[in-house]
Amino acid sequence: MEEAQFMDEAVRLSLQNMQTGEGGPFGAVVVKDGKIISRGNNQVLKTSDPTAHAEMVAIREACKVLGTFQLDGCELYTSCEPCPMCLGAIYWARPTKVYYANTRQDAADIGFDDAFIYQEINTSFEKRQIPMIHLPHTQAIQAFQHWAEKNDKTLY
Amino acid sequence: MEEAQFMDEAVRLSLQNMQTGEGGPFGAVVVKDGKIISRGNNQVLKTSDPTAHAEMVAIREACKVLGTFQLDGCELYTSCEPCPMCLGAIYWARPTKVYYANTRQDAADIGFDDAFIYQEINTSFEKRQIPMIHLPHTQAIQAFQHWAEKNDKTLY
Repeated sequence: MEEAQFMDEAVRLSLQNMQTGEGGPFGAVVVKDGKIISRGNNQVLKTSDPTAHAEMVAIREACKVLGTFQLDGCELYTSCEPCPMCLGAIYWARPTKVYYANTRQDAADIGFDDAFIYQEINTSFEKRQIPMIHLPHTQAIQAFQHWAEKNDKTLY
Repeated sequence: MEEAQFMDEAVRLSLQNMQTGEGGPFGAVVVKDGKIISRGNNQVLKTSDPTAHAEMVAIREACKVLGTFQLDGCELYTSCEPCPMCLGAIYWARPTKVYYANTRQDAADIGFDDAFIYQEINTSFEKRQIPMIHLPHTQAIQAFQHWAEKNDKTLY
């Protein structure tokens, strides 16, 4: 079964991270036309970059390979259910499907905040652990109006 | 008012993007000890990277400046309410506070998917626009167990 083989590779990358210490136990691959076009492993510790999750690394690399910000016709295989950050990135990159192995609860069980962040997204701003404060700004809205009126823009 | 000045700079970056065409009308800054330590503008079009939102760029740059994956004691100012991807990144980077100007609805009004992605997060996997398929994997769970048992790990 092809899907199982692609997941094997994502999981292999997650196990490899236990040896290299580049980050947590997470791996991902992007597949197009039955071939792996990019691989990602969690590199948060190696790069001191909190956004360097396996899925993010794989998505960014796949976009580089394809020369586009859209993963049309691609599938993402990840060793763990994407956290909200990675899920957001998936929606911006728009692959066709996502396959995952471990769940957000499995991640929470070994100390990762995925489940907590999913909760926070549905918490009102004033009750969130990281407070979010609205500072409306006239020119910020003007920037949006400029965008709406711009004729030569690329939609993404 | 200090907060207003930092927001001015985030908004200036969002307006500047209308001129340079590097991406959408979004800007952000990270502030520590009353000083801007990093700036971010949306670079999705320039870099063909769907993850290069203003907040992501600013967070990654701030972590580089500080040499750490944690934004302790930092504040993020962004010209628009963070999308789910950026909100996730904020929770992983853990700044103290977030200030935003435009809202997710303002973003939706000019064609950005923020509000839609927030909806999708709360939609069951089988009903999502991008299907998510569970492929449990014995070794994926083993990778998590290795991590749990690892004595020399850095928590993040």
